[in-house]
Amino acid sequence: MSDNPFRVGLLGHGTVGGAFARLIEERADAIEAEVGRRPELTGVLTRSRGDFEEILDRSDLIVELMGGIDPARDYVLRAMQAGRHVVTANKQLLSQYGEEVFDTARRGGVQLRFEGAVAGVVPAIRVMAETLAAAHIERVHGIVNGTTNFVLTEMARTGATYDQALAEAQRLGYAEADPTEDVTGKDAAAKMAILARLAFNAPVRLDQVSCEGIERLTPDDIEYAKELGLSLKLIGSAERIDGGIAVHVYPAFLYADHPLATVNGAFNAVTIESPTITEITLSGPGAGGIQTASAVLGDVVSAMIPPPSLPAPAVDVPVVTDTEFSFYVHLEVADRPGVLAQVAEILGLQGVSIKSVVQKGLGDEARLVMVMHPVLESKFRAAVGLISRLDFVRETPRVIRVIEEVFA
Amino acid sequence: MSDNPFRVGLLGHGTVGGAFARLIEERADAIEAEVGRRPELTGVLTRSRGDFEEILDRSDLIVELMGGIDPARDYVLRAMQAGRHVVTANKQLLSQYGEEVFDTARRGGVQLRFEGAVAGVVPAIRVMAETLAAAHIERVHGIVNGTTNFVLTEMARTGATYDQALAEAQRLGYAEADPTEDVTGKDAAAKMAILARLAFNAPVRLDQVSCEGIERLTPDDIEYAKELGLSLKLIGSAERIDGGIAVHVYPAFLYADHPLATVNGAFNAVTIESPTITEITLSGPGAGGIQTASAVLGDVVSAMIPPPSLPAPAVDVPVVTDTEFSFYVHLEVADRPGVLAQVAEILGLQGVSIKSVVQKGLGDEARLVMVMHPVLESKFRAAVGLISRLDFVRETPRVIRVIEEVFA
Repeated sequence: MSDNPFRVGLLGHGTVGGAFARLIEERADAIEAEVGRRPELTGVLTRSRGDFEEILDRSDLIVELMGGIDPARDYVLRAMQAGRHVVTANKQLLSQYGEEVFDTARRGGVQLRFEGAVAGVVPAIRVMAETLAAAHIERVHGIVNGTTNFVLTEMARTGATYDQALAEAQRLGYAEADPTEDVTGKDAAAKMAILARLAFNAPVRLDQVSCEGIERLTPDDIEYAKELGLSLKLIGSAERIDGGIAVHVYPAFLYADHPLATVNGAFNAVTIESPTITEITLSGPGAGGIQTASAVLGDVVSAMIPPPSLPAPAVDVPVVTDTEFSFYVHLEVADRPGVLAQVAEILGLQGVSIKSVVQKGLGDEARLVMVMHPVLESKFRAAVGLISRLDFVRETPRVIRVIEEVFA
Repeated sequence: MSDNPFRVGLLGHGTVGGAFARLIEERADAIEAEVGRRPELTGVLTRSRGDFEEILDRSDLIVELMGGIDPARDYVLRAMQAGRHVVTANKQLLSQYGEEVFDTARRGGVQLRFEGAVAGVVPAIRVMAETLAAAHIERVHGIVNGTTNFVLTEMARTGATYDQALAEAQRLGYAEADPTEDVTGKDAAAKMAILARLAFNAPVRLDQVSCEGIERLTPDDIEYAKELGLSLKLIGSAERIDGGIAVHVYPAFLYADHPLATVNGAFNAVTIESPTITEITLSGPGAGGIQTASAVLGDVVSAMIPPPSLPAPAVDVPVVTDTEFSFYVHLEVADRPGVLAQVAEILGLQGVSIKSVVQKGLGDEARLVMVMHPVLESKFRAAVGLISRLDFVRETPRVIRVIEEVFA
């Protein structure tokens, strides 16, 4: 053991924890050369071994990689109350108990870092908290779930169905046996709640993030998107709207010029927009064991060099849920005169304006694909509700949001 | 004036300096709320007004936005010797006198920050110095000059010649009246020297960066690239090679999957590769006044919260200049039997292996376009020298490097 090591206690020894334990040993020399102190792992808590109190006693900093709320929340709070810095990659904890955790860190005068909790190795947290500390962030768009981005990329590349692409993702280890958290958008929603907290300094509860998954997307949707030069992604968005903020997760078509349109496979990316910077896009591999461990180790090194980098106390800001979007709608209809006219009339009465239409005859049937100008979601949904009850509409209309180019 | 303002002295009041002066005032409230102290501009030095010593006396931090070596170097050194933090966007100063400036900061115990010197608002410096402080960086690829990327994007988009695209860039304000620094790659070389210093902790002199510009590229080259699914960019590369490092700037073809292939217009981007992170790509607008001012203000805010974030003292590492590349070569030849055989024989004798060939007949003449497997540049140049002296070769061969996908 070196003279004055920086003592790190590790909670959790799964994929990321194991990778972190190896990485910190491997990089200890380089870190010592860089910051003048050597990090050393002084204890590991697993499900079957180790004692939290003992590890706490022997540590300057606790790395929490257990995930979940219980007992991670209790351990993190106790560590900070005992004056220990904490590095965590726990998105559940931060999106559900963020303010409690931040307040405890602030009162304890300790550092709390969590780059690994969002977007794998992509340094979104640091860039927002530091590079953009002085900027007024207007909007954040992210592809923050690698599993769903892999599935959508496969569907676009091979024409596979959702089920086929998901099976391929599972075979290759990009999706878990139970992929529910990922494909429903819930994982992305937790990450967007954390990003919104930092971007707007507003506490966002996970249940305020509206969330739609990718389970109902079909090869058809992607086929049309290709014809229109669009790509289909699961997008998380957080933006300022009318003095409030809005946070959503939904599948969306992106125009080819959008910086997220070319983010493929299991990659993650975040685009941050602000008047003074225009936009910054950060991209890299989504969460893999070694990549997340690398983000965690970067946080440990930062914590070795004070000062704390904590978000300021949050200010209450209204969270808006009904916001404007461009929508794409896909209708299967009977092929007879007056169909388009009736649909257009309903849209018009609801104040929904059509940007483009493609109609394709298929024997007795037809397919109507439309993209709308931006409109309040409630108005658009009302119109679609009326349209779906028309007798010539053969299937439930399919609706997907469309994101314009940043510089449109 | 607030109770305990953080006093900022500004040297230089051109495009970036003017934007910075406006921005710091505009954002002062938000910064005070964020970090607990209010930044205030306490003096401005322009060509015609202000006194350096007086400004120094009244400042906690000096922002240097004069550019060039003289008198910027003297002012920056004197400010740090007097115990003032310094934020600069001066790539010439850092690429030519980096070690002197870093040593002075270290001895003075002051902060030196310079995000604005490289890639506009793209936070490459902070991510390398902080997020990746613990990572072993293998390679950095960058599009770090917005002017040349705009010109190449225009050539690809419209089929314009280099001269036409440059004129358009000048008309739109993306290129200066004298674009020499940009189009010759010298501006990019200075930025790559700074990135290499941080990536490898090795002092890189500007004259060790080999540098090739975009002036001789033709619409033909871009046409072929499109056929092959490639895009043409001015690339800066810095990488570890055989215990040394190599830093180059050159036009290169990128495969469609490369993260820099879709960076268009006046944008900048940097891809950082390391075994533990795979890669991170950061992109955003290149240097504009307000964007660079925003990066500078981010540095000022970081400096308001100690500690110093300085690169460690540099370690001497050999700089390698003859390295391996894939090459594309374009030959205008007479269309007669045996031409390909003779060219192939010379390549083979020099140990150069052909990856793909396209030959097109054009009446009595023909065009031979080849891509080679990676080969030491000196060997390839020797082979091309011999080929260019063959009697059937009608024009000087055109040579462009090719960069493979990261995950090839």
